[in-house]
Amino acid sequence: MNTKTEIIAVGSELLLGQIVNSNAQFISSELAEMGFNTYYHTVTGDNAGRLKAAIETAQTRSNVIIFTGGLGPTKDDLTKETIASHLHVQLVTDNDAMASIEDYFKKVNRAMSENNRKQALVLEGSHILKNDTGMAPGMALEADGIVYILMPGPPSEMRPMFSNYARPYLLELLGEQEKIMSRVLRYFGIGESQLEADLEDLIDGQTNPTIAPLAGDGEVTLRLTARHKEATTATQLLNELEQTINARVGDYFYGYESTSLLQEVTDRLIERKITISSAESLTGGLFSEQLTTVKGTSSVLKGGIVCYSNSVKQNLLNVKPETLENHGAVSGQCAKEMAENIRRLAESDIGISFTGVAGPEPMDNQPVGTVYIGIASEAQTEVHELKLAGSRDGIRKRSVKYGCRLLMKHLEKHTAL
Amino acid sequence: MNTKTEIIAVGSELLLGQIVNSNAQFISSELAEMGFNTYYHTVTGDNAGRLKAAIETAQTRSNVIIFTGGLGPTKDDLTKETIASHLHVQLVTDNDAMASIEDYFKKVNRAMSENNRKQALVLEGSHILKNDTGMAPGMALEADGIVYILMPGPPSEMRPMFSNYARPYLLELLGEQEKIMSRVLRYFGIGESQLEADLEDLIDGQTNPTIAPLAGDGEVTLRLTARHKEATTATQLLNELEQTINARVGDYFYGYESTSLLQEVTDRLIERKITISSAESLTGGLFSEQLTTVKGTSSVLKGGIVCYSNSVKQNLLNVKPETLENHGAVSGQCAKEMAENIRRLAESDIGISFTGVAGPEPMDNQPVGTVYIGIASEAQTEVHELKLAGSRDGIRKRSVKYGCRLLMKHLEKHTAL
Repeated sequence: MNTKTEIIAVGSELLLGQIVNSNAQFISSELAEMGFNTYYHTVTGDNAGRLKAAIETAQTRSNVIIFTGGLGPTKDDLTKETIASHLHVQLVTDNDAMASIEDYFKKVNRAMSENNRKQALVLEGSHILKNDTGMAPGMALEADGIVYILMPGPPSEMRPMFSNYARPYLLELLGEQEKIMSRVLRYFGIGESQLEADLEDLIDGQTNPTIAPLAGDGEVTLRLTARHKEATTATQLLNELEQTINARVGDYFYGYESTSLLQEVTDRLIERKITISSAESLTGGLFSEQLTTVKGTSSVLKGGIVCYSNSVKQNLLNVKPETLENHGAVSGQCAKEMAENIRRLAESDIGISFTGVAGPEPMDNQPVGTVYIGIASEAQTEVHELKLAGSRDGIRKRSVKYGCRLLMKHLEKHTAL
Repeated sequence: MNTKTEIIAVGSELLLGQIVNSNAQFISSELAEMGFNTYYHTVTGDNAGRLKAAIETAQTRSNVIIFTGGLGPTKDDLTKETIASHLHVQLVTDNDAMASIEDYFKKVNRAMSENNRKQALVLEGSHILKNDTGMAPGMALEADGIVYILMPGPPSEMRPMFSNYARPYLLELLGEQEKIMSRVLRYFGIGESQLEADLEDLIDGQTNPTIAPLAGDGEVTLRLTARHKEATTATQLLNELEQTINARVGDYFYGYESTSLLQEVTDRLIERKITISSAESLTGGLFSEQLTTVKGTSSVLKGGIVCYSNSVKQNLLNVKPETLENHGAVSGQCAKEMAENIRRLAESDIGISFTGVAGPEPMDNQPVGTVYIGIASEAQTEVHELKLAGSRDGIRKRSVKYGCRLLMKHLEKHTAL
């Protein structure tokens, strides 16, 4: 079956912006993994006329239509009623569902109000999708070459129903077919457009595997997706493409899937039992704060000094007055002393420092976006100068990412640390 | 104008479930507040044919169509191209947009790749919506009785564009009608259910103004919305309701609209020229980092010490060894010394300290969620013990908020500082 899937979420709370359509994301992600093509998401309110119009549109373009929401007990829950009338199918009471609803009210010792019976009504002839975490059962129905799946709106009910009952049903529809495997490659320090320019021929020529770039937070990811009857062949296809890509842009590659620069650098520090401390001017504590969010850092992070003012740079961090006078606080020399001094003061293996101009105003005759990062270890002190663009907040956050990246390179270079 | 609004998000990453359609939620919530009726959300992938089909469907049922996504530099960004060809409108270069793109690449000292020019193309005759946080400008165009709004996909670009440029444009469309005025009141230190219980009769009896409570990040906000033909009367209605509410829960009130505890406390420090420094164990630099995100803090924030390890507490911050031995690092005594010592070392008017157990494991025989905050000034050293619930991250963030709240109270009490 060549699937053309559409997800229709029903609920006025979505159109009022009170909640986000996380159901569509969850189902889409599952479907992608299963090899279904999702071409449309639609949201309509609790309105029979507009829901009917959405169904009619979906019937012209989709052959798997997945509904979420509108299966509850109240008057504005009208998904199955609307579908029943549109497809000329009867609604009948499902005895199992009715028994479990009655059971629920007995258990909580509350009287069952009449409208709860409505939840046990199902489309006649449909395959029931059990609701293990709520009352309204789901349904799957085939009619005129189109598959209709109905599930409740609350994610706590929909997700287990999808995973345990809808997913196997849908996979059976697909029958024998290709395995789909994805891999996410993460890059830092290269722009999306540059990455695409470097890989243009690969992206233009893509068929299997496909390459999907996505940019965000100063990083770029590539999602490679391969399809093949044999899982091993799909993996082989991914391996080959990854090698081809990283032969060109591997310098910027730092990890797979949902990892982060912070996670990667912390993993290496913990693995090698290397302690670290920080001296932060520009970033005001952001580096150390972010490090403490990673579990297990207490064994490697000693602490640091936030030297936002020159007096703290001088008095607490012992930066030389001549350095501040002759080079300024935003200088390579200052970054060097900050990194070396915090390493010594905090008695750590590595000291890292951040100084720069986040804006909005220039400082020390340096334009906004000028950043110096120092890394001091037994092996070497290095200082890097960066020119970053963006907002005040963006410059600070990107500086921390660059710091992590430079730390990783330092650890790679000095394997004896 | 009787609005029938539809939001069309364009992006294959949405259909693959890689990201959630938070743009639709944000815009819907804004539109609801502005008095627009949103009847449909649609999502399509980066595919010209299916996007065109979605536009055709939208034209039959909506008179305001808001697009997000697909305005970027790459080949799969095709929203404006598809709309241009469908509406028979030319794409022309917007000189302002082009200048700011060139400016960006000059600033970061990187070569502009050719595909970035594409971002400066706009629909001929459209009203430009400025992009203050990115490169691709937005557009608003009226054609055959339908309003088309195009905005970029990244929320960091779309949100300010909507609030600052699309919103006023859309409100103008609505024309003469009731004025809608809103006011957000912010509370900290009281739970949502307690606030609702205290205001139950007001919330139950609400008609005009309406009261909408919203909880998040340990804070509760109340959004009051009044409608009246006369703006002055609407304001008067809001003033009266605010007085009634704060007669009951004013103790927890700290500010209006989108302010934050951090902003409020920083404003007061700057106003009164009071300098501050921090000693952070539990929070790992989060307090000082957050303070530096507020414009103008460089005049009051001296810096601080992140004393994540006991060796840094002792060697850099001069906490007495006896204190760590007899009371532990998570103790009122330690918080007191931390606050007093950083104040002295950094030569600031106020020293603030954070020590505690963020979890997941207990520490120093103290359960997860035990937090001590110290505030030292010329007038007084105070230490507060808190018992917080929640995740590791939640405890740290809430501690910083409590720190700000306690600082505000300290500044109120000691007016001579």
